[in-house]
Amino acid sequence: MSSPSVNRRIVLAARPRGAPTAQDFRLEQVPVTAPADGQVLLRTVYLSLDPYMRGRMSEGPSYVPPLALGETMGGGTVSRVVASRHPGFREGELVLGATGWQDYALSDGEGLMPVRDTAHPSYALSVLGMPGFTAYHGLLNIGQPRPGETVVVAAASGAVGAVVGQIARIRGARVIGVAGGAEKRRYVTEQLGFDACLDRRDPHLAQQLAEACPDGIDVYFENVGGAVLDAVLPLLREGARVPVCGGIAHYNDEAPPPGPDRLPMLMALVLRKRLRLQGFIILDHYADGYAPFLRDMSAWVAEGKVKLREDVVVGLENAPAALMGLLEGKNFGKVVVRVAD
Amino acid sequence: MSSPSVNRRIVLAARPRGAPTAQDFRLEQVPVTAPADGQVLLRTVYLSLDPYMRGRMSEGPSYVPPLALGETMGGGTVSRVVASRHPGFREGELVLGATGWQDYALSDGEGLMPVRDTAHPSYALSVLGMPGFTAYHGLLNIGQPRPGETVVVAAASGAVGAVVGQIARIRGARVIGVAGGAEKRRYVTEQLGFDACLDRRDPHLAQQLAEACPDGIDVYFENVGGAVLDAVLPLLREGARVPVCGGIAHYNDEAPPPGPDRLPMLMALVLRKRLRLQGFIILDHYADGYAPFLRDMSAWVAEGKVKLREDVVVGLENAPAALMGLLEGKNFGKVVVRVAD
Repeated sequence: MSSPSVNRRIVLAARPRGAPTAQDFRLEQVPVTAPADGQVLLRTVYLSLDPYMRGRMSEGPSYVPPLALGETMGGGTVSRVVASRHPGFREGELVLGATGWQDYALSDGEGLMPVRDTAHPSYALSVLGMPGFTAYHGLLNIGQPRPGETVVVAAASGAVGAVVGQIARIRGARVIGVAGGAEKRRYVTEQLGFDACLDRRDPHLAQQLAEACPDGIDVYFENVGGAVLDAVLPLLREGARVPVCGGIAHYNDEAPPPGPDRLPMLMALVLRKRLRLQGFIILDHYADGYAPFLRDMSAWVAEGKVKLREDVVVGLENAPAALMGLLEGKNFGKVVVRVAD
Repeated sequence: MSSPSVNRRIVLAARPRGAPTAQDFRLEQVPVTAPADGQVLLRTVYLSLDPYMRGRMSEGPSYVPPLALGETMGGGTVSRVVASRHPGFREGELVLGATGWQDYALSDGEGLMPVRDTAHPSYALSVLGMPGFTAYHGLLNIGQPRPGETVVVAAASGAVGAVVGQIARIRGARVIGVAGGAEKRRYVTEQLGFDACLDRRDPHLAQQLAEACPDGIDVYFENVGGAVLDAVLPLLREGARVPVCGGIAHYNDEAPPPGPDRLPMLMALVLRKRLRLQGFIILDHYADGYAPFLRDMSAWVAEGKVKLREDVVVGLENAPAALMGLLEGKNFGKVVVRVAD
């Protein structure tokens, strides 16, 4: 192939106040640098968009360090090696990395992993990658559902929630999902096999959840917060487990919501119901947990026991709008940006 | 001894609004019934007063069922068998039970345990009993302090807090206590061996705690809530553990405090810091955990490694005022009522 000359990249132009807008991003064009000895030049093929990215756009503390103004937006990527001066990589192969929102990137190879499933390379960003591993670790190691227990998961058609529910079904639990809109809800029950799926926008969500969980809730996989958490809390059973991996309903909050202050109520509930609330960041668990995850999940995907719908956005320039939509729940499935063929 | 004829008992006269008052209790005198076949008649010697009793006085859900109006106040007791028609008990022996706020009680023997340490029978209500077991289980099984880690415990001179801190010291942790007033603070550091003890009423508690915990907090044993929890939250380290066994600062609350609503903030903190918040009720753990606790704690007490100060109130009729004082932190050590010699 001819040597590329221009790298398009999208940088953080301004820190969002509340929901991000187009003005918070800037597309820049810079020259592509040829790889030095020991380096590879990578062409981004797929870019993953994930809720945690909102946290990095703000200055305050998050579980990932904030981006600097003018810095290229970060993100997981599947890339093709287009030039290699590194003995571990050959031109044409696909690698999983974190080269962010840009067409090209140089790498010294550190942190790059081969993409084995070349028929579905984007799966390395979804069901076989970070979101799938998040679902697997959080549900099995913290949630620990037992057969017959009731598991509730919000964002049930999303990259993490869909996998949480399907693993819980494999483990013999009843699974109630919450998703936005009739189409997603139908998909969650008919395609993913959840026992039921409620509408997150329904004003009677709390009552519907209570009816769907007549024995209460044993595991609530927390990735949204907001109205779903409010509906879940009174239904948690004694000894319930709450793996906490996100709270997308609040990512755009500028200030804490008005009172009363329910923090003491939550602590009292933790005591009275003997709850276990446990946060986790999946990056902490790759060293110990990724290999068993990949073995189990690859088998489940091959057997058709775990499915994942992808919401593919074409073109790097469309990533900002796609992230804004993701934060509002407008996506339907795991969002990946197809940056190149 | 002559056969007793009158049983004094203290019943719940009214449900408190906020802090209990004398009008919420009523002392009644009723005849003592002689034991039937298979029963023992017990004379209360020591009655334990504990914060959980406040929860039982209210109607709302608590981790223990509410008392009915007119019902005798419940509570752990050390009693002497004064008449026995039960083959398992002989007159004169001391037993641990839960016969509540009264001079005498009949029992069919179920749930009674022999009191082995007859030199200090009240220890069966404190360091060798429920509060000691609460400290042991919560700290070691949920808190899991490692040598060199920082453990914070409030109500540090109280029945549970004092034991938590001393066990944490045995395990090689740094221990920072919080207590009310100079006398208690001195006792906690000089007698119990905590590394430091702060004043819960100091308006600069948050700043002082930050200075006392320069590396942050690895384990916070939660039994108070309120200002101590507020000061602790920003200092929790990644991976910190928070065993939750009480929230005495809120037991008299009539309504949730004013806003803003910090519940989403707490959930975000659980995620960002990978916290584990876990509630427990010690009654759940007697079957599996009591024997190893009693073995370890008896040894520590015998070796002088764990001490406990008792705040002994004389006379059953003084129990209501003593419970009111306990809920305001006016006690100094584990509160036991000496009901008879």
